Amino acid sequence: MYAVILAGGVGTRLWPRSRQSTPKQFTDVTASGRTMIQSTVARLEGLVSPEDTYVITGRRYADLCALQLDGLPESNVLVEPDGRNTAPAIALACAHLKRRDPDEVVAILPADHLIQDCRGFQSALRQAERSAREGYLSVLGIEPTKAHTGYGYIQREEGHLPLAGDLPTYAVSRFLEKPDQATAERFLADGRYYWNGGIFVSRIGRLLAEYEKQLPDLFDAMNSIAAALGTGEQETVLAEIWPTMPDVSIDYGLMEGAKKVAVVPMQVGWNDMGSWDALEAVVAEDEAGNYPVEGEILPLNSRGNIVAAQQRLVALIDVDDLIVIDAGDALLIGKKESIQQVKQVVAELQAADRGELL
Amino acid sequence: MYAVILAGGVGTRLWPRSRQSTPKQFTDVTASGRTMIQSTVARLEGLVSPEDTYVITGRRYADLCALQLDGLPESNVLVEPDGRNTAPAIALACAHLKRRDPDEVVAILPADHLIQDCRGFQSALRQAERSAREGYLSVLGIEPTKAHTGYGYIQREEGHLPLAGDLPTYAVSRFLEKPDQATAERFLADGRYYWNGGIFVSRIGRLLAEYEKQLPDLFDAMNSIAAALGTGEQETVLAEIWPTMPDVSIDYGLMEGAKKVAVVPMQVGWNDMGSWDALEAVVAEDEAGNYPVEGEILPLNSRGNIVAAQQRLVALIDVDDLIVIDAGDALLIGKKESIQQVKQVVAELQAADRGELL
Repeated sequence: MYAVILAGGVGTRLWPRSRQSTPKQFTDVTASGRTMIQSTVARLEGLVSPEDTYVITGRRYADLCALQLDGLPESNVLVEPDGRNTAPAIALACAHLKRRDPDEVVAILPADHLIQDCRGFQSALRQAERSAREGYLSVLGIEPTKAHTGYGYIQREEGHLPLAGDLPTYAVSRFLEKPDQATAERFLADGRYYWNGGIFVSRIGRLLAEYEKQLPDLFDAMNSIAAALGTGEQETVLAEIWPTMPDVSIDYGLMEGAKKVAVVPMQVGWNDMGSWDALEAVVAEDEAGNYPVEGEILPLNSRGNIVAAQQRLVALIDVDDLIVIDAGDALLIGKKESIQQVKQVVAELQAADRGELL
Repeated sequence: MYAVILAGGVGTRLWPRSRQSTPKQFTDVTASGRTMIQSTVARLEGLVSPEDTYVITGRRYADLCALQLDGLPESNVLVEPDGRNTAPAIALACAHLKRRDPDEVVAILPADHLIQDCRGFQSALRQAERSAREGYLSVLGIEPTKAHTGYGYIQREEGHLPLAGDLPTYAVSRFLEKPDQATAERFLADGRYYWNGGIFVSRIGRLLAEYEKQLPDLFDAMNSIAAALGTGEQETVLAEIWPTMPDVSIDYGLMEGAKKVAVVPMQVGWNDMGSWDALEAVVAEDEAGNYPVEGEILPLNSRGNIVAAQQRLVALIDVDDLIVIDAGDALLIGKKESIQQVKQVVAELQAADRGELL
């Protein structure tokens, strides 16, 4: 099995740790000892070899990938001329992979997700690989733990598919956009809905066929790129064709319209670290009810605070539910329930042309 | 006129900036460009020469004094064998000064107060000097701006004294301990009450006479020390006598019981920086209603926050009335109304034997 890791995003919602120079996937926001992309690769150990692992990222981050993923062949870092969306990025990966073995299976994974139960994840991925070999376009379905309105959902059919393996695999009825609260509650209660974490597994040939059918312009572009690979024209062709590729996601462009799609449910402590409050689910609560990610907390009458403060002591007096993120040149202090507004902080810094803080 | 600057305190209420190694008077908590003791000396310019300015401090801080006050003769840094109280400290200074000129006037000033209107302060000090030359034990009286319960008060007589000078000077009726709220309200409404900021001016001979009358043990001790000054016995005598000196304040030990005491009122933006919330009165409020002491604030729906964060940007999201003090190895974040509890933080660090953070 091949793996393609999508590492082109910038992740402004994890400012001030996620920066244009070092987006979140290249940082270790949970103080785990590994950056997120390192964890993503490490999680594939035993399933996909480094030689078969590809990373797609922006030109600016190619060196970071090489630096952080030292077992990965340099030629496996695929550079997008500029950041577009997941359908063009995966098409670029397919242009490379189809020359290696179009009958092989590829797993597509975001670089910036956290997963606590690595063994559970590997079982689910193995099961998705199995269904992909049977011809399915497969997706890992994250069992919802609350009625979240920030994710797309996957609805499955009632009975599971007649596939071998330890884990049940279901046919997908449909992909659903982010729901409103009431709908999310209904999904949670129903039991046949999963969060779409953007982890897909498919035979390469099957993916190519879907591109050809559903995104023919992108398919043609991919073939032109593939034909130029390894020739002196490679960079010229890529630079010429890339800007013409439609800015569409793999979910919207391919998955929603595909037939014979399978979902493998998993319950593995998945977290997309979409914003700082997600740390609460990842970091152990201390005796006083706070979440020390980095550094040390000395709390007086203070609870529910998430603190990532490098190597310092943070004394808290009479404050609750704050998020404190120290990044050296910038310090974020915000109320947990409002922390999504960090995007507005980034927007204001952009408007003020404060590139050094972005 | 001589000046004696009392610089022996440690100031735990300004932790984490005020540290055992560098108490608050040796720090620049308002980012003024000068440490508090440097400002205290600078404020005397034109009134007292560096040769006539003395500092009393602990042994541990003698080098800091020399370093920060580079115009001061080294022999003008008087070292207390250990920290006691203001009456022994001032007695030690008197032991030195009576050998120079007991008829001269001395101004006694704390090292850790802020004063915004330096010219107004100098006028008041000059007036106090004038009354001291007329034989008064004089004190500067700070016009109260609110019904503060954290200060001692000075009550004056109705009409002012028949003294030359631009500023009215009054006879003191009595010194009063920290009042309760209702009493403080009454003092404020009355108009004849001032805060006691601990700034005294007197002829040296008058001070000596008060010691002799009211604190005879301390007077005898002072004379023994004075006799040993400049001899080989100086250190031995000081080390022997110091521990026997009573731990009493100049207010309680001398001022309250003295006759012929005068007060010169002043309204000069005085602030004793007794705790971090005092910065609100010292630092200009920005457009958004926050108080940037150091560093830069980027506030979203956040007001009333006091931030001293070295050179960094502090983004605030949906937080009000916080105090944020960054000291490199430690960061304090507390609710303004509870910030006095920083003493408890210091106590906990002491109990945990965390000397590196004290």
